[in-house]
Amino acid sequence: MSKAEFKGYAITDANLWSQFNVVEYQPKTFEDDDVELRIAYCGVCGSDVHTITEGWGKIPTPLVVGHEIVGQVTRVGANVKEFKVGDRVGVGAQIGSCYKCRACKEDQENYCPTKIDTYNDKYPDGVFAQGGYSTAIRANQLFVFPIPDNLRLKDAASMLCAGLTVYSPLKRHGCGPGKKVGIIGIGGLGHYALLFAKAMGAEVYAFTHSDRKVEDIKKMCADHIIVTGSNPDFAKSLEMQLDLIVCAVDVGAGMPLADYLSMLWVHGKFVMVGLPDEPLPSMKAFDFLCGAFLGGSHLGNKKEAVEMLQFAAAKNIRPWIEELPMSKASEAVQRVKKGDVRYRFVLKQDISPIDVE
Amino acid sequence: MSKAEFKGYAITDANLWSQFNVVEYQPKTFEDDDVELRIAYCGVCGSDVHTITEGWGKIPTPLVVGHEIVGQVTRVGANVKEFKVGDRVGVGAQIGSCYKCRACKEDQENYCPTKIDTYNDKYPDGVFAQGGYSTAIRANQLFVFPIPDNLRLKDAASMLCAGLTVYSPLKRHGCGPGKKVGIIGIGGLGHYALLFAKAMGAEVYAFTHSDRKVEDIKKMCADHIIVTGSNPDFAKSLEMQLDLIVCAVDVGAGMPLADYLSMLWVHGKFVMVGLPDEPLPSMKAFDFLCGAFLGGSHLGNKKEAVEMLQFAAAKNIRPWIEELPMSKASEAVQRVKKGDVRYRFVLKQDISPIDVE
Repeated sequence: MSKAEFKGYAITDANLWSQFNVVEYQPKTFEDDDVELRIAYCGVCGSDVHTITEGWGKIPTPLVVGHEIVGQVTRVGANVKEFKVGDRVGVGAQIGSCYKCRACKEDQENYCPTKIDTYNDKYPDGVFAQGGYSTAIRANQLFVFPIPDNLRLKDAASMLCAGLTVYSPLKRHGCGPGKKVGIIGIGGLGHYALLFAKAMGAEVYAFTHSDRKVEDIKKMCADHIIVTGSNPDFAKSLEMQLDLIVCAVDVGAGMPLADYLSMLWVHGKFVMVGLPDEPLPSMKAFDFLCGAFLGGSHLGNKKEAVEMLQFAAAKNIRPWIEELPMSKASEAVQRVKKGDVRYRFVLKQDISPIDVE
Repeated sequence: MSKAEFKGYAITDANLWSQFNVVEYQPKTFEDDDVELRIAYCGVCGSDVHTITEGWGKIPTPLVVGHEIVGQVTRVGANVKEFKVGDRVGVGAQIGSCYKCRACKEDQENYCPTKIDTYNDKYPDGVFAQGGYSTAIRANQLFVFPIPDNLRLKDAASMLCAGLTVYSPLKRHGCGPGKKVGIIGIGGLGHYALLFAKAMGAEVYAFTHSDRKVEDIKKMCADHIIVTGSNPDFAKSLEMQLDLIVCAVDVGAGMPLADYLSMLWVHGKFVMVGLPDEPLPSMKAFDFLCGAFLGGSHLGNKKEAVEMLQFAAAKNIRPWIEELPMSKASEAVQRVKKGDVRYRFVLKQDISPIDVE
């Protein structure tokens, strides 16, 4: 296998958010705990769109986004025992942490206060972190995940952010047999939440704004489908019924958050995994008198990532994806912005293609 | 003991929120599960002030508030085995529920959707519920709590709302040895939270806006005292340090809620027990990426109430109270409105006094 080169589809003008140009860039310094991989596929995450449209703040250019990365190992550092050249691996939305704080020591590295994002961040050596709409990437081995043999790389790709972001809160907050779990917003994250929650054995309530996706949601095997847009009173008949809600909508102020909370059983949790640009609806302390809890979640730890990939392989969970060549990143991000995707784009790397599936 | 009469200090004009007049009123129909008590003391809760000032909505008149009630049993229904005439008992802020929903069946009667508040609510017989600034009250036995012999009635009174409101979330959300627990706002509820959390064995961080109460808080044996008003960066040095926060401030928009959440360890809970009139600060989904959860709590169930009273008796927990005759209710509510109380008023019933302590 040839040596990795570092080229990617970059935003080169912050005012042209959907225009990508191939640029060459410097990777981080290769260290003893690092793994280098050539990229086969990269998923298109809502985060990519929030970032390049500057919904989450100003960006520097050139910027290569993408953090649902799968490929093949080309180089391992001296301390790396888990991986060898040729292994099929993935990298998600976090690429580094401090490795020494309480969070890092207690398998909560995804909550490390000095975590490094996979793109639009800076490595300790000062190098700017570029993402996965590219040919290759280097990552500390803690943030590299082995892909099981019977899981296709293109299917694993979007699990590494979208999948993990919902798998972790489902696992941590008790999804399983005998539990009633609500999933709000059946998009990239939500469709994973639905598939995983079902496979974990929960009774799944899928909430969707319009009837556009109802047939798809049936095929995903939701136990109950609630179309919220046409029924403003949808929450009443579900008062205190649900044990857990994972909310994947990318909507802030317009979300009927108090209604959602009212559907939770005592001390049930509402986990917001969408990250809308705008604030959440204004809440009163009274809205929480039902004993429900509102919180968030940040990706998952390595143990959960590895477990999720094995779980997906064992349960034959196949995401609903649409594949495009990476040169069509522009089309992909524009369609994600419009919500025109069922349910995740996966870009096949075409600058320096590799032959691994 | 003479038959109970039902007279109380009532607001008779909603525009005169601090003017009380003695009125006679009809009690609820006495039923087989009911306990009737003559009232010896009643605490003055922030809820009383929110209600009579109409911060929580319009009120009917005459209205007798008060839901931190202690006294002596004068009558028990045919189904009541737990209590007998002469027993020292208390009644808190809830006086009824449906007794048959999942919440009621699973010791979550304090979350019953058709719960009945002790005052400003309606009994199933249509009678309007009047509170404890009065001579007597009738309550279903599920909402009557035995007061241990070595706990003075005047000390038990304010435990029945203020105490229980913080005891329940402390217990349910893991306060105990090895845990770092933050208490925000050292007032009526907060001072109980501090005393209980210490007695449960937690390391207690007391957050107070100014230095006015610092000497008191030292006497209450907080392990750490953080004066927030003079140090806007107070949360930084405590990032991810606390396991649980109970927030008893009666402030909405002005509260640095995102800072508070940042102090919680992964999946730590922020329990809002204050009920300010105005909305909470506007929050973004990003504020929850730390994995913290924001929620509320409603009183406690009977088991917790009984346990709390026994715990307070066993640990010799004495609230900081100021006693006034019930005829001075007006002074009490005005001073509570101004925050001029350390830390709870307890009114001694003086319309038809009884000789029990």
